[in-house]
Amino acid sequence: MSANTEIQPAHQGKTMGHNEWETFYKADISTKLHTFSRDGRIYDCLFSQQFDRNLLDRLIRLANHMRAITKVREGDDFLQSLLAHRRAMLYFSQPSTRTFLSFMSACHILGIKVLEIRDLKTSSQIKGESFEDTMLTFASYVDLIIMRHHVAGLAEKAAWTLNRAHRPVPVVNAGSGADQHPTQALLDIYTLQRYLPGGIDGKHIVMVGDLKRGRTVRSLSYLMKNFSDVRLTFAAPEAFRMEPDILEFLDRHMIHYRQTEEFHSILPDADAVYMTRIQDEHDTSGESKKVDYSPFYLKGEHLKTMKPHALIMHPLPRREEIATEIDGDPRAVYWRQERNGMWMRTALLAFVFGLEKTVLDHPAPAGERG
Amino acid sequence: MSANTEIQPAHQGKTMGHNEWETFYKADISTKLHTFSRDGRIYDCLFSQQFDRNLLDRLIRLANHMRAITKVREGDDFLQSLLAHRRAMLYFSQPSTRTFLSFMSACHILGIKVLEIRDLKTSSQIKGESFEDTMLTFASYVDLIIMRHHVAGLAEKAAWTLNRAHRPVPVVNAGSGADQHPTQALLDIYTLQRYLPGGIDGKHIVMVGDLKRGRTVRSLSYLMKNFSDVRLTFAAPEAFRMEPDILEFLDRHMIHYRQTEEFHSILPDADAVYMTRIQDEHDTSGESKKVDYSPFYLKGEHLKTMKPHALIMHPLPRREEIATEIDGDPRAVYWRQERNGMWMRTALLAFVFGLEKTVLDHPAPAGERG
Amino acid sequence: MSANTEIQPAHQGKTMGHNEWETFYKADISTKLHTFSRDGRIYDCLFSQQFDRNLLDRLIRLANHMRAITKVREGDDFLQSLLAHRRAMLYFSQPSTRTFLSFMSACHILGIKVLEIRDLKTSSQIKGESFEDTMLTFASYVDLIIMRHHVAGLAEKAAWTLNRAHRPVPVVNAGSGADQHPTQALLDIYTLQRYLPGGIDGKHIVMVGDLKRGRTVRSLSYLMKNFSDVRLTFAAPEAFRMEPDILEFLDRHMIHYRQTEEFHSILPDADAVYMTRIQDEHDTSGESKKVDYSPFYLKGEHLKTMKPHALIMHPLPRREEIATEIDGDPRAVYWRQERNGMWMRTALLAFVFGLEKTVLDHPAPAGERG
Repeated sequence: MSANTEIQPAHQGKTMGHNEWETFYKADISTKLHTFSRDGRIYDCLFSQQFDRNLLDRLIRLANHMRAITKVREGDDFLQSLLAHRRAMLYFSQPSTRTFLSFMSACHILGIKVLEIRDLKTSSQIKGESFEDTMLTFASYVDLIIMRHHVAGLAEKAAWTLNRAHRPVPVVNAGSGADQHPTQALLDIYTLQRYLPGGIDGKHIVMVGDLKRGRTVRSLSYLMKNFSDVRLTFAAPEAFRMEPDILEFLDRHMIHYRQTEEFHSILPDADAVYMTRIQDEHDTSGESKKVDYSPFYLKGEHLKTMKPHALIMHPLPRREEIATEIDGDPRAVYWRQERNGMWMRTALLAFVFGLEKTVLDHPAPAGERG
Repeated sequence: MSANTEIQPAHQGKTMGHNEWETFYKADISTKLHTFSRDGRIYDCLFSQQFDRNLLDRLIRLANHMRAITKVREGDDFLQSLLAHRRAMLYFSQPSTRTFLSFMSACHILGIKVLEIRDLKTSSQIKGESFEDTMLTFASYVDLIIMRHHVAGLAEKAAWTLNRAHRPVPVVNAGSGADQHPTQALLDIYTLQRYLPGGIDGKHIVMVGDLKRGRTVRSLSYLMKNFSDVRLTFAAPEAFRMEPDILEFLDRHMIHYRQTEEFHSILPDADAVYMTRIQDEHDTSGESKKVDYSPFYLKGEHLKTMKPHALIMHPLPRREEIATEIDGDPRAVYWRQERNGMWMRTALLAFVFGLEKTVLDHPAPAGERG
Repeated sequence: MSANTEIQPAHQGKTMGHNEWETFYKADISTKLHTFSRDGRIYDCLFSQQFDRNLLDRLIRLANHMRAITKVREGDDFLQSLLAHRRAMLYFSQPSTRTFLSFMSACHILGIKVLEIRDLKTSSQIKGESFEDTMLTFASYVDLIIMRHHVAGLAEKAAWTLNRAHRPVPVVNAGSGADQHPTQALLDIYTLQRYLPGGIDGKHIVMVGDLKRGRTVRSLSYLMKNFSDVRLTFAAPEAFRMEPDILEFLDRHMIHYRQTEEFHSILPDADAVYMTRIQDEHDTSGESKKVDYSPFYLKGEHLKTMKPHALIMHPLPRREEIATEIDGDPRAVYWRQERNGMWMRTALLAFVFGLEKTVLDHPAPAGERG
């Protein structure tokens, strides 16, 4: 867990099982994984660490097959029929465009009806309801909770609470504080596997920017343990270097990495450059303003130093990290990466609801790859 | 009507029929009921007083049958087909989680498409539109208006306005000021009838907390006239005792009640304890802070004094009125009460659209009770 | 273009093609029209000037046929099946009731799934994303963007950006600053053609109120070039007279108009009176307060001076421009005008997606006009 994660109880009084939760939350993640699985498959999607290579491959296959199926209208109708009797809550306490819209689109693709809370002022938490009670309430009405919260750990707490409740429903973490953003990591893996010749194994991936507070690079780093001979370079300003917990994780899994404050000279060796924005929404005392971020920009002039097949990625939104003149370069895949997110999230939801086989059994139109 | 109801015109100028409305509004409720009925059944759902025993029984039967039908996917599809050509407006000027989500879910279950306004800043009322014109506008696009408003009487005014308009659509009151919340009362009755052995007749129901400003206990009290030999106890702090209009109603219908400021000693005799939150959002000068509310809490230690079949209910959200340790007790039915609300509202909407017979004619899967 | 249009870049840095856009934006509208068409039909719907008489007639026919089809449930189901595999973004940066709800209803009628952003605080533009990037992101997930923006020209900019992008999707302008509101003009034309005996040709139309800043009257004026022998009267306070660009357009197309500050004496000669509200949301220094708007009110006493077939129209919301006592007069068509908007927008969306023939080929039930 990152140093800047924290639990901020929504309720002042002691809620049921508060101490139990504290103990659970602090436990090593490997001991938790079975809590969030059912019937031999992932139930709550909370951390990148829940995904092994087999599962990643299956989700990618599922996403690809869905894309192929929906090349014809009959395929759209088939997918929309699958979960038309289900309802999902999109609970977003932080602003979001991409994650919100792609999850909502994923629900639409599968026929899931969506209820949303984006403005907490319109909900009963302002009447003093505890976070746990709000989650139990959602579970009274819906079959799935997709949640983004500014407090790290709260998606996990929601899942933990609901798993002990009268009517459990799966929880999908759509970004938790500065901690994790596992579905972003899934779509990043999907993008890398889809466009890198031969996939991720043996490649050199350069992550650039505010690595300390960028939860996407944190989540992506965890997933690297599923690939062979990957080399990572973390290029960040001194103040925003990758947190020690990730570095320790990489050491433990013997994944090669190095850290630098200068990335342009590395570009000729990179197979993928993952650019990120400065995360100043997590500033506590204006620390972002003290940093010169301009050495961490990618400009048109750098393109000529890069390999012909190298990928330029970004979780978006961008500011000036990537010059817009780069958008037209075939190596710039961030817009496709964005759309890959919609399909990967669709695949994940289908998987969580046990529909992997049903979808794969549905034939793709001739000429479309599965 | 409660003393703290008031009409606050959204429009400064005199709108059409303003005096007529004032006269209508002040009339006795018994003279109004036919105005809000059509084809021999309820059309606008505004007050608890619109529901007699026969109607309550029919709605409960309808809700139960829908639950049975949807044990199989074919039943979900059947219900969703019923009103797929209809659109509903959810117009909520007050924060709401439960009522909003359960009505939205009810719409989804019946296939109704939903349009929502929860943040009035995004609507044209800020351009100076009158309340009546806004309602007429909704009626131009949708087939049903579900509305929560902080001003008592406005749901009734909407229904009254639309009934005289070019394109009338039904209005459902989802909570009007400190006055009424009839669908909450319906789900409370449903819960009492469902779980009390032998139903409500002859039972002793204890209502606890801020009874003055809690519209749920007001609406529930009205419905008690439909049951035999019910005894009520109102346990409230001096400052928040049940309003005289309700007490007069009970006297008129010869329903036995008593008032107290101490409820723990009554627990051994209670068949249902209906706890409520202090409604400080209705404070005008911090009156809630002057009251010691702690004598109106239910704690784990009180459970042992209660009957084995006694129900513990709460409209939710709760603060500290019910200790979370009680959640696991089988007599604690508030989470089931919440979900009952979704089904009761689904039944009500189906009823308003004249689908009672259509739904009941649809067979439930073998082994499910209708 | 109106004098009060302006481009206000959402992004401080220079975005790709900024100069190209500036050049394009300033060009004469006649040179732009092909940019926003595909396959011989309108693709992006941005300006009134895109609609010729033939297209207006076709859209009206389509709207009428849809209304006829949906007199029976089978017709609702047919329409809802047409675009059930499509998703639309409703992006509204300005408050709106009518336009928002009618577009949303139009989407529901055609089965289109809707994603909405009405509160920009919940989107990533607050993280410093450029307007162009936000549009490209929408295009990653949806098949259509319907947008209202307080900055004139931004809908056009969105369409221009997306037409050059990897995944173009059509853009519909739902109101751009004080400039245009083309779909309002379409529904106004539909209303005039539908209720005026013999249609618009040869009629006298009086537009009243804040003509300077009312984008509906601007857009409607442009469409007048499609009709023969129309006479226009613009009745406005001195400070809010129709802008010169519109007057020049009318001169160029030899459409007869006159301007006045007194409209009551003209009423006996009017075939349609189009009332408008003072647009004080566009005030920059309280200019609305300095104007006596009361000479531009229509009151019950004026009805007797009007022709029996004359139409009273208003884009709504109204304040006091039209006394509510007029609502019951058969010549008051503003509520029907509002509902016409829903159907005209449904027709437009069907048209943009190439469904004109498919819809017209679907038989209307016997006795319904097509």
